[in-house]
Amino acid sequence: MLCGMARWEPGAAARLREAALRLFAEQGFDATTATEIATTAGLNERTFFRHFGDKREVLFHGQEAYLATFLEGIESAPDGAGLPDLVAAALRSASVGFPDSRRADSRRRQAIIAATPALQERDRHKTAVLAERLAAALRGRGVAEPAATLAGESAATVFAVSFAQWLAAGERRPLADIADDTWATMLTLGST
Amino acid sequence: MLCGMARWEPGAAARLREAALRLFAEQGFDATTATEIATTAGLNERTFFRHFGDKREVLFHGQEAYLATFLEGIESAPDGAGLPDLVAAALRSASVGFPDSRRADSRRRQAIIAATPALQERDRHKTAVLAERLAAALRGRGVAEPAATLAGESAATVFAVSFAQWLAAGERRPLADIADDTWATMLTLGST
Repeated sequence: MLCGMARWEPGAAARLREAALRLFAEQGFDATTATEIATTAGLNERTFFRHFGDKREVLFHGQEAYLATFLEGIESAPDGAGLPDLVAAALRSASVGFPDSRRADSRRRQAIIAATPALQERDRHKTAVLAERLAAALRGRGVAEPAATLAGESAATVFAVSFAQWLAAGERRPLADIADDTWATMLTLGST
Repeated sequence: MLCGMARWEPGAAARLREAALRLFAEQGFDATTATEIATTAGLNERTFFRHFGDKREVLFHGQEAYLATFLEGIESAPDGAGLPDLVAAALRSASVGFPDSRRADSRRRQAIIAATPALQERDRHKTAVLAERLAAALRGRGVAEPAATLAGESAATVFAVSFAQWLAAGERRPLADIADDTWATMLTLGST
């Protein structure tokens, strides 16, 4: 190894995330420190902070990429697509980011959030930001107010409800199918 | 005056609230203390804490009564009322609590919340609690899942959007009318 070069730790982010999920589950989010996560992963604190701003970010990193998946769905919808199809495209596009192979990991993450009020608030904030971005994208596709804001909020709600269902014990359907059904239910509340 | 009796301060809560709104607007919520609010109202700190748990509660007191107005609307709806009518009844019942005489005061309160991230989070939490209570009340009226949860979230969103519109510059329509229109828009997103 050449001295003086920054050391490259293969898979450091994944190892830190795995250590964090285990510690958060065992002893609680609040009682766990960044240093402890690094040590458990066999790395040092500096390496931790090269990858994450703080321990909360281990659970919420990649938010911009997550938001982008919804917006790409709207952008790639055909010209003249109506509001219901635009939202359906956003939900479908975002669902691709959560294949069944990620379900077990997402369940672990969700259990930690459910046990920690400060993380629930962070999660509500994430949903609020998603609703605003979706509303802006819908306005960009010609949807008027207040329909754009209502649809942005509805789409964010539908994704959150679908995601919770996807993680429910015994649920086996893919997220995209659950989200499709949930959006259909939302659109027919008027005839319930 | 009889010595040893607790002193009764007529209108203390209203005086404290007025002093708080003025100080929050002038110097910011974060920079204002409970003691300062009491002093400005010509009262002492003990009187402040007899009325409010902390300075945030000045802006968010009466939340249970607020939630109850929505639920009373659902409870008093006729047997056999469908989901759209149950939600409309909840919105109309809650709107009664915000007559036009409260609009100017509500605008002052809203400006303080908009300027303070911690209060915005408190407001998001209030909306989340409202959505859950509405969903529970709808399940109590026989609405199945996931429609009850989706409708609870939708009703909370519709009230928040309507309330913001009610406070918008130049808006003169009563809150009940705005909420009726907004709920109608929500129910017809599918045909947008």
